[in-house]
Amino acid sequence: MNDGRSRKVGDFAHLDVDRARRRGYPEAIYCEGKTPEQVGAIALSLREVEQTTLFTRARPEHADAVLEVLDDVFYDPDAGFLAYPAAAPEPSGVSVLVLCAGTSDLPVAKEAMHTARYLGRAVSLIADVGVAGIHRLLSYEEELHSAGVIVIAAGMDGALPSVVGGLVSCPVVAVPTSVGYGAGSGGVAPLLTMLNSCAPGVGVVNIDNGYGAGHLAAQIAAR
Amino acid sequence: MNDGRSRKVGDFAHLDVDRARRRGYPEAIYCEGKTPEQVGAIALSLREVEQTTLFTRARPEHADAVLEVLDDVFYDPDAGFLAYPAAAPEPSGVSVLVLCAGTSDLPVAKEAMHTARYLGRAVSLIADVGVAGIHRLLSYEEELHSAGVIVIAAGMDGALPSVVGGLVSCPVVAVPTSVGYGAGSGGVAPLLTMLNSCAPGVGVVNIDNGYGAGHLAAQIAAR
Amino acid sequence: MNDGRSRKVGDFAHLDVDRARRRGYPEAIYCEGKTPEQVGAIALSLREVEQTTLFTRARPEHADAVLEVLDDVFYDPDAGFLAYPAAAPEPSGVSVLVLCAGTSDLPVAKEAMHTARYLGRAVSLIADVGVAGIHRLLSYEEELHSAGVIVIAAGMDGALPSVVGGLVSCPVVAVPTSVGYGAGSGGVAPLLTMLNSCAPGVGVVNIDNGYGAGHLAAQIAAR
Amino acid sequence: MNDGRSRKVGDFAHLDVDRARRRGYPEAIYCEGKTPEQVGAIALSLREVEQTTLFTRARPEHADAVLEVLDDVFYDPDAGFLAYPAAAPEPSGVSVLVLCAGTSDLPVAKEAMHTARYLGRAVSLIADVGVAGIHRLLSYEEELHSAGVIVIAAGMDGALPSVVGGLVSCPVVAVPTSVGYGAGSGGVAPLLTMLNSCAPGVGVVNIDNGYGAGHLAAQIAAR
Amino acid sequence: MNDGRSRKVGDFAHLDVDRARRRGYPEAIYCEGKTPEQVGAIALSLREVEQTTLFTRARPEHADAVLEVLDDVFYDPDAGFLAYPAAAPEPSGVSVLVLCAGTSDLPVAKEAMHTARYLGRAVSLIADVGVAGIHRLLSYEEELHSAGVIVIAAGMDGALPSVVGGLVSCPVVAVPTSVGYGAGSGGVAPLLTMLNSCAPGVGVVNIDNGYGAGHLAAQIAAR
Amino acid sequence: MNDGRSRKVGDFAHLDVDRARRRGYPEAIYCEGKTPEQVGAIALSLREVEQTTLFTRARPEHADAVLEVLDDVFYDPDAGFLAYPAAAPEPSGVSVLVLCAGTSDLPVAKEAMHTARYLGRAVSLIADVGVAGIHRLLSYEEELHSAGVIVIAAGMDGALPSVVGGLVSCPVVAVPTSVGYGAGSGGVAPLLTMLNSCAPGVGVVNIDNGYGAGHLAAQIAAR
Amino acid sequence: MNDGRSRKVGDFAHLDVDRARRRGYPEAIYCEGKTPEQVGAIALSLREVEQTTLFTRARPEHADAVLEVLDDVFYDPDAGFLAYPAAAPEPSGVSVLVLCAGTSDLPVAKEAMHTARYLGRAVSLIADVGVAGIHRLLSYEEELHSAGVIVIAAGMDGALPSVVGGLVSCPVVAVPTSVGYGAGSGGVAPLLTMLNSCAPGVGVVNIDNGYGAGHLAAQIAAR
Amino acid sequence: MNDGRSRKVGDFAHLDVDRARRRGYPEAIYCEGKTPEQVGAIALSLREVEQTTLFTRARPEHADAVLEVLDDVFYDPDAGFLAYPAAAPEPSGVSVLVLCAGTSDLPVAKEAMHTARYLGRAVSLIADVGVAGIHRLLSYEEELHSAGVIVIAAGMDGALPSVVGGLVSCPVVAVPTSVGYGAGSGGVAPLLTMLNSCAPGVGVVNIDNGYGAGHLAAQIAAR
Repeated sequence: MNDGRSRKVGDFAHLDVDRARRRGYPEAIYCEGKTPEQVGAIALSLREVEQTTLFTRARPEHADAVLEVLDDVFYDPDAGFLAYPAAAPEPSGVSVLVLCAGTSDLPVAKEAMHTARYLGRAVSLIADVGVAGIHRLLSYEEELHSAGVIVIAAGMDGALPSVVGGLVSCPVVAVPTSVGYGAGSGGVAPLLTMLNSCAPGVGVVNIDNGYGAGHLAAQIAAR
Repeated sequence: MNDGRSRKVGDFAHLDVDRARRRGYPEAIYCEGKTPEQVGAIALSLREVEQTTLFTRARPEHADAVLEVLDDVFYDPDAGFLAYPAAAPEPSGVSVLVLCAGTSDLPVAKEAMHTARYLGRAVSLIADVGVAGIHRLLSYEEELHSAGVIVIAAGMDGALPSVVGGLVSCPVVAVPTSVGYGAGSGGVAPLLTMLNSCAPGVGVVNIDNGYGAGHLAAQIAAR
Repeated sequence: MNDGRSRKVGDFAHLDVDRARRRGYPEAIYCEGKTPEQVGAIALSLREVEQTTLFTRARPEHADAVLEVLDDVFYDPDAGFLAYPAAAPEPSGVSVLVLCAGTSDLPVAKEAMHTARYLGRAVSLIADVGVAGIHRLLSYEEELHSAGVIVIAAGMDGALPSVVGGLVSCPVVAVPTSVGYGAGSGGVAPLLTMLNSCAPGVGVVNIDNGYGAGHLAAQIAAR
Repeated sequence: MNDGRSRKVGDFAHLDVDRARRRGYPEAIYCEGKTPEQVGAIALSLREVEQTTLFTRARPEHADAVLEVLDDVFYDPDAGFLAYPAAAPEPSGVSVLVLCAGTSDLPVAKEAMHTARYLGRAVSLIADVGVAGIHRLLSYEEELHSAGVIVIAAGMDGALPSVVGGLVSCPVVAVPTSVGYGAGSGGVAPLLTMLNSCAPGVGVVNIDNGYGAGHLAAQIAAR
Repeated sequence: MNDGRSRKVGDFAHLDVDRARRRGYPEAIYCEGKTPEQVGAIALSLREVEQTTLFTRARPEHADAVLEVLDDVFYDPDAGFLAYPAAAPEPSGVSVLVLCAGTSDLPVAKEAMHTARYLGRAVSLIADVGVAGIHRLLSYEEELHSAGVIVIAAGMDGALPSVVGGLVSCPVVAVPTSVGYGAGSGGVAPLLTMLNSCAPGVGVVNIDNGYGAGHLAAQIAAR
Repeated sequence: MNDGRSRKVGDFAHLDVDRARRRGYPEAIYCEGKTPEQVGAIALSLREVEQTTLFTRARPEHADAVLEVLDDVFYDPDAGFLAYPAAAPEPSGVSVLVLCAGTSDLPVAKEAMHTARYLGRAVSLIADVGVAGIHRLLSYEEELHSAGVIVIAAGMDGALPSVVGGLVSCPVVAVPTSVGYGAGSGGVAPLLTMLNSCAPGVGVVNIDNGYGAGHLAAQIAAR
Repeated sequence: MNDGRSRKVGDFAHLDVDRARRRGYPEAIYCEGKTPEQVGAIALSLREVEQTTLFTRARPEHADAVLEVLDDVFYDPDAGFLAYPAAAPEPSGVSVLVLCAGTSDLPVAKEAMHTARYLGRAVSLIADVGVAGIHRLLSYEEELHSAGVIVIAAGMDGALPSVVGGLVSCPVVAVPTSVGYGAGSGGVAPLLTMLNSCAPGVGVVNIDNGYGAGHLAAQIAAR
Repeated sequence: MNDGRSRKVGDFAHLDVDRARRRGYPEAIYCEGKTPEQVGAIALSLREVEQTTLFTRARPEHADAVLEVLDDVFYDPDAGFLAYPAAAPEPSGVSVLVLCAGTSDLPVAKEAMHTARYLGRAVSLIADVGVAGIHRLLSYEEELHSAGVIVIAAGMDGALPSVVGGLVSCPVVAVPTSVGYGAGSGGVAPLLTMLNSCAPGVGVVNIDNGYGAGHLAAQIAAR
């Protein structure tokens, strides 16, 4: 099947090239579980395509495989995020503000931020404003109120969306991170906290899914 | 504390009357775990308040307690939803489309729909379009593409948001329902399915949380 | 065995009458899983004992069985708490402040408060100060800072101890409640949140264990 | 015990050589948890046996141990699958179609395909037809309708069997894969989705159990 | 939408009337979570339809609602199974043998048996042949070997499919039941046992899903 | 099948009458999930049988059904235990000591005690000796050391077997009870504690399975 | 504390040297989580002690540390089992038969066998007799009936104790192994199966706890 | 934001320097999930700060990064604990006694002990006094009764707090450790045991959270 709506790569992939037309957002290649060879072959098939393409969960060996065939890419190894071409689109819609509760949540927060930026939104990031020192968050009330949508990455108690959600009128996208240990580790504790947020207006994505959080935020902010 | 920002009711509640000003959305009273007497006392304190107030998870005895002190209310017992005053605000923003996968998911879908309507959005509902008979869903592609935001209530396999999310460009709010039995019952199976949706652009709320889904959808659709 | 350190009641109980001497705190009878007849027989055996005795998880039929043989009791049916004799000891030590996040958490909060009071502490209670309207909590900063120990009962997201723990220097005893529904219901979500509190200084007891929370708080406040 | 129905290998294994007679399908050696030496000893004992034997979860060191004593083998390291002798039987029965939702599900899909082929069925494979781009699947309706039994390997949301099961009349064997992350990872999410499939006619095997899926499919397709 | 492929009933259901044409098997109405009124309205819409329709999880009040509008029905209250019309089709294909491990598993076993019978298969049932008295099972070896497909309903240890699967060449459909208590109760223990069956050739359906087991067996036995 | 080794009752049961010969212990009828009519029919089939038969999890309606056809029975409704005939065999082997940690664990402890007694052992019981008042347990060291096997029923923290197992040389059979609430409720907490006992020599049976504990103890004590 | 009942080693261990007197069985050193240096120091402290001492979960580096200070030891690296002195006591009591379901369960089975042997019992082992080829087990009925106690190590479906328990009159000690994958992996599936065994007379120890199984068996077989 | 209440480090951290003033206890840096570079940058920012700062979960590479910029530090690699400056404050308040059940629990116990010491308390430690040899614990009754607060680190059955809590009048802080294996491993079993302690007066912190246990103990002991 190679009919203009999907593109077969080897016998292992059907790229959904129709997606940009159908959904307005580009295809993303999830690299985990794919060999560098498979990722490289997919990258090769993109050479003549002009639209933005994202590679997520890209380890350095995946990035190397892409760089062998494409030379104009953006790559953030901490976030495992790679975009082609390197230039992000002109931002449109309202702005996306990304918060993270602790320094350890930064890789997920950055994956969200990069995703929203490459899907065409203006983005900004505030790090390490967890609720255990609530004055840090409250000092940013102006930034909170001027955002079009807020993405929050938090591990451990995952309490930040409950507080932020109660302060603002814009939607909040909450992404639990696997930061923490012991009972509820692997992101289970913050996931449950976010699903049980006392403040309404919080949409949750899967643990460590910064890509999903950024994508949803970009759609909400599209207008 | 009774300072214009919160209102003390008896010794058991602090109504967040500042919320409409701060967030732009009215207070909601979660009736589960409250006695009818407590709910009635809260209703009484609202008499001079002019803003819309929602009562969720309202069983008939809660509704009766409200009706004793307020006479202009809307009540849908299937959805456990009560609103005061009965007239919903004029709709603004873009439209909210609510889908449910099966007939048994209707109470949750209706709670979402009522919530979005009383928060000021135009709403519509399509029922029983689960993926096991995919032609039913595909016959509604026009409705899907014209929605500003789509809420999906689904139990059992919870697969509908994965398919819908792949078809549209607007955000999807997914609410798993506790419909189903056996492994993954109580809504766990559709919750996990939705969190693992292959299609990005899906924000998840807690199981059976139609109120939360409708509230988030209303915020997204506010523009 | 009836040796002055434990007292046999029928063939089903060994009261630990030595406990007040050994630990400084009186025995408590956990009524759940005991028949009213068993509870009544235990109450009867206390008639000549002069020390305070608590009955927890006491349903009305348990209370009736006690009242048949003891007439000087305090009973709060909402909290399922019964104390004999009715007069609490003169308070000593520092004060215990009990907070609850929502109105639905009140029964557990009250069980904690009653327990601490009957173990000899001065107690107070502030209800419905959950983090979704953070200004409600912040308006009580003076009360927070003057407490000797703070007990917090919270369900749903269970985020209140993370915020309070970050504001005060005294220990916090956190008791998750089974308020909530869906993923993490039955108190699992707030339990995990509390165990993962970003703010140190939070000791957790089991879900709905108001008695345990009040007992620990009384010991901490003993000085 | 070495009675023609089972064959003792060292003091660690009783090969069920009666199985082909009793069940009509050959023995399979599960290599995980066995040392290469044990696997090699088992292979040696097969030299005079003429029937097909499968080795599953065979890592390269297991394969090496087999190749030292048997020289006519088929080995696919991605699928961890090894068969002796290398020539598959002539296909009989109806055909087995294997689908996988994403590229990362291929190793499990191939283990299923190889198993069915070495048990005597005609097989084919279609990769990367997950539901998030539903047009990819729908373009293969002809292949779906001509299959005698369909095996589906899927991770993440595991939604593909619900859609396929609703389109065809033949049985579907669903094998969840451990592809995914976060809540429901390790294959739990697709397992639960498949067990809760809204479409009847779906039999589930354990996570990543491509061998089990292929075996069941071969039995169903035997006729 | 009422286009010959699906039939709208009120605003709460889209019957998939195309299903018999598309899949070769009739529609089934899952009654749990539907009101008797909704079930009655669906039954009414079937009056002019000539094809077999199944109602599963039908409690007596659901059955009464159907009987008010349809008079030619079969109803087994133990299995919660209702079929219209009462006469099952002439059997075709190979035979379906249903086993249950204990007497308490009978309701699920019967739901499977009735389903297969109304989908057009010859069925038989052997009860109470659990593995703790293995001679009971072994005395039925002839019946086991002549079956075209075997359905096994078992709770508690769920070990029966492992033993039966090792004895026969036909496929086994295993349905765990919620019979049991303590750790692994609610059917979790037998579900996991069946998914981990040492004998290949076992396809599993959800806990207590006798309908799903019977449906899959009927498809396998169709030939 | 009615061949002297098993006895068919109606079409729903195969009594394993060979069990006494094969295993030396009588059949037991698990009443949960059986109708009183089924239990009554089984009882009727026992009239000519002379061996001891146990009925477990027998609610009063089950007991009534048995009493209608057998008149020489022992019934303890708290333990849900019924034996026929009422006279227990002469005790042989070494003695079985049953301990329970709290009064609420008594029903399970008694089921174990009755079972061991009707399987032919001398039994005794000590109640309410949980570890929170360790002097109660230590005052019974003589009884502990003279027992042939010790059964321990405990809920909540389930810590008693760890302490007792460290004091004695005889085997300990531990049965967790569903006494407790919150995290680990339903017996999960004591089950895990017992499986993780620091003292070796502890064999665990399922939660609330007093019958299984008593049966195992009787076998161990048989000598 | 070094009072003849316990022996302090450095500041990290209190050996329970009183245990042989009190319980009749020697101390065992659990090596996991201890450094080789700590294990070596403990071994050194045993030099003048004449009683048998076991070291469990001993990796080669632990064994090396012991061998540096003690030269008369038995070590089986597969089972992680080390005993000092190397000569096992003369067997007494009745015999212990160890079964394992598959070759991969052998390390746990051997840990159980070694433990029972060094605690003074006669032991034997039969490997690879899982229920999927039931004739293998049934060919050993004589060995089963002559055992004094049977230990069964099994992973995956864990069904062997249910079948064996139904065949014999002696007690069965069941030890689930972590052999398997997918749902219920890590030994959860066989643990639940064993706890839910339809055949009474099965005592369960923790997953992979061969030491605990062998110890309990030795106590049961002591007579 | 760098306003005297929090200090920004790079774009990845907001140190809560106000915490000592607000809470009376110093900031702690959680190193897990931070790069050595980030930890080093934070350490650098502390050079002019005079207050005690703790680094927890500090692996050697984190310690090296700190030592490059600060030279007066205490580091215990077993406990992953680093303090700056090396001299602990003069002890005040009542004393903190740390117990651990087994040698393998020592790293967590030491993290608790170090934390309490650097927060200004007098500390002592008793190791390897688990309940399986209860005489070891009972020989320390004097130390137990003279403690101001007791911290208990225990894995496996986690039963020690239940026994100790029943012996003393001071509060107990219980920290489950991830020592153990099989069912309830990773610390789940001792966590549940501690939450279900029959003895009241036990506050629980997360698994392996020695820092949290020591911090809470220090606050309780502050007076």
